[in-house]
Amino acid sequence: MKAAIFRGGDIVVDTLPEPVPGRGQVLVKTLACGICGSDLHAARHSHRMVEVSRRIPGRVPMDLSRDVVFGHEFCCEVLDYGPDTERRLKPGTRVCSMPLMMEADGPKGMGYSNTYVGGYAEQMVLSAPLMLEVPNGLPTEHAALTEPLAVGVHAVEKGAVAQGEAPLVIGCGPVGLAVIAALRLKGIRPIVAADFSPARRALAVRMGADVVVDPATESPYARLAADKRAAIFECVGVPGMLQQMFEAAPRDARVVVVGVCMEPDALEPMFGIVKELSLQFVLGYTPEEFARSLRLLAEGEVDGEALITGKVGLDGVRQAFAELGNPERHTKILVEPWR
Amino acid sequence: MKAAIFRGGDIVVDTLPEPVPGRGQVLVKTLACGICGSDLHAARHSHRMVEVSRRIPGRVPMDLSRDVVFGHEFCCEVLDYGPDTERRLKPGTRVCSMPLMMEADGPKGMGYSNTYVGGYAEQMVLSAPLMLEVPNGLPTEHAALTEPLAVGVHAVEKGAVAQGEAPLVIGCGPVGLAVIAALRLKGIRPIVAADFSPARRALAVRMGADVVVDPATESPYARLAADKRAAIFECVGVPGMLQQMFEAAPRDARVVVVGVCMEPDALEPMFGIVKELSLQFVLGYTPEEFARSLRLLAEGEVDGEALITGKVGLDGVRQAFAELGNPERHTKILVEPWR
Repeated sequence: MKAAIFRGGDIVVDTLPEPVPGRGQVLVKTLACGICGSDLHAARHSHRMVEVSRRIPGRVPMDLSRDVVFGHEFCCEVLDYGPDTERRLKPGTRVCSMPLMMEADGPKGMGYSNTYVGGYAEQMVLSAPLMLEVPNGLPTEHAALTEPLAVGVHAVEKGAVAQGEAPLVIGCGPVGLAVIAALRLKGIRPIVAADFSPARRALAVRMGADVVVDPATESPYARLAADKRAAIFECVGVPGMLQQMFEAAPRDARVVVVGVCMEPDALEPMFGIVKELSLQFVLGYTPEEFARSLRLLAEGEVDGEALITGKVGLDGVRQAFAELGNPERHTKILVEPWR
Repeated sequence: MKAAIFRGGDIVVDTLPEPVPGRGQVLVKTLACGICGSDLHAARHSHRMVEVSRRIPGRVPMDLSRDVVFGHEFCCEVLDYGPDTERRLKPGTRVCSMPLMMEADGPKGMGYSNTYVGGYAEQMVLSAPLMLEVPNGLPTEHAALTEPLAVGVHAVEKGAVAQGEAPLVIGCGPVGLAVIAALRLKGIRPIVAADFSPARRALAVRMGADVVVDPATESPYARLAADKRAAIFECVGVPGMLQQMFEAAPRDARVVVVGVCMEPDALEPMFGIVKELSLQFVLGYTPEEFARSLRLLAEGEVDGEALITGKVGLDGVRQAFAELGNPERHTKILVEPWR
């Protein structure tokens, strides 16, 4: 089968053996897979990512001398099942899944793995128990947004943002936009959102932001209600963001760190101490949050269409990685490996 | 009056004009004042402290070209009142107070101020409404522990540590010991505490720790119950502690940062992200927590005696600053300016 492979620090299209589903696994055809900012980070900072993974017990680092196929935001079609596996959904059924493979010693990640290919490939295997049927009528490309939406839903849940708090979203890329959508669904308003890009600010409004701010001309922190506790979502994920928040956040603010900063960072704790700030780092989502996100999309509660700014075949992945650097042009590019 | 003054980067004993209480203020005689680790930090990193204060709106930085009298853990005796001030407590009454002076535009700190002398002086002025009478029978030197105990009480409250969580206290200086006492009072156990010093570990047990660990020979994190959420108290306050916790903490741990690290620090956010850690920075206490701490000491709920390892007059402050570097010998040294 064809795949866009991360090989030798670059994305190349080549053929790989078709995956063979084992017991409890399903063979699927990849219909659409979103390109995630984490994939761009991983391509740029792959050695760093491996080094950090090595130092975290239980993580299996990628072997960069071997092929890796990225892609963890997918919608697929059931083709076949592995041996001794309940054929719960008929071949042809469209499914989503958390990007995890259940193994005897616990779940393993997909998309940054030498063992399991991600969604930038014509076929994948999934764990049968994790498959969720795409509700009838939900377009495939919207179903592929389940994973990034779940990231926002989880950030709001794990961040334990409460009614009466004043939310501020820093960075309106796909992660920030998902956080805005999740805040809006919980009715925690007014939502202030900040991004340097006019296109991203327009999207933030479409996803539910009440106030958008260009941080080049105005401090987004100045737009926070003074009589409410601030809940600030860091959705950028580059070094320096935490210190910027430490300096700008109001007293007693809660910072939910959703952006995935893979590099070392510097911080002056005194700002956090004097203001009694809190930081909650978040990652991923629960199975319930993932399933809820798919339902929210199916019920039209989130405007998925607004986020999709491009579609490419496997041959277009490399170029798409480059183009995603321009926030005016792109938000979410979907890979359609069958193209 | 005599005072131990922070002047030109050193502690010198000299005479200062006697303070004159204004409206709403009380003139008091300082009976005892604890030397706080923050005073040592402030003496060592005074320029840094000033620079950070300058960058935090609402903070009044010390002018290091002028005299500062440290000391914010005091027990005093009422001498006289300012004009138009209700004489609520008779002269001779022993009192404690949060180290704050109420001004028209909000509270101002004492102890790191050019305006208000702290407790390393024979006399001070206090804000009359903040005075709390020392309950009959509580020794003065124990009453002087109200402030550091309140820091521990507040850390446990603001950290929102709950029954069923597994507390770990890193660093058993006065702050860590106060946290241990506060955890014990809330019945959140077993309490694991870590310190390199055998004397400090013995004190930790006396204050209520159930398990003490020498981090030179064993990881304190290994003693955390695996089936409970960890609540880790950082009570050291030097650069590198946060990263150490990021690497060692279990998944979903909550870190309460009580140590006051005045220097810049480095951090790898990926560890926090992958483990979904949270950091709550805390500082000070509420008026209720301060009053509660005085009551707890008066009711014998906290063994204050164990913490006091020395008493000095003003002439001994400089030497005491040096000796507090040895954790085997000292925990809390009280300054008795009348000596």
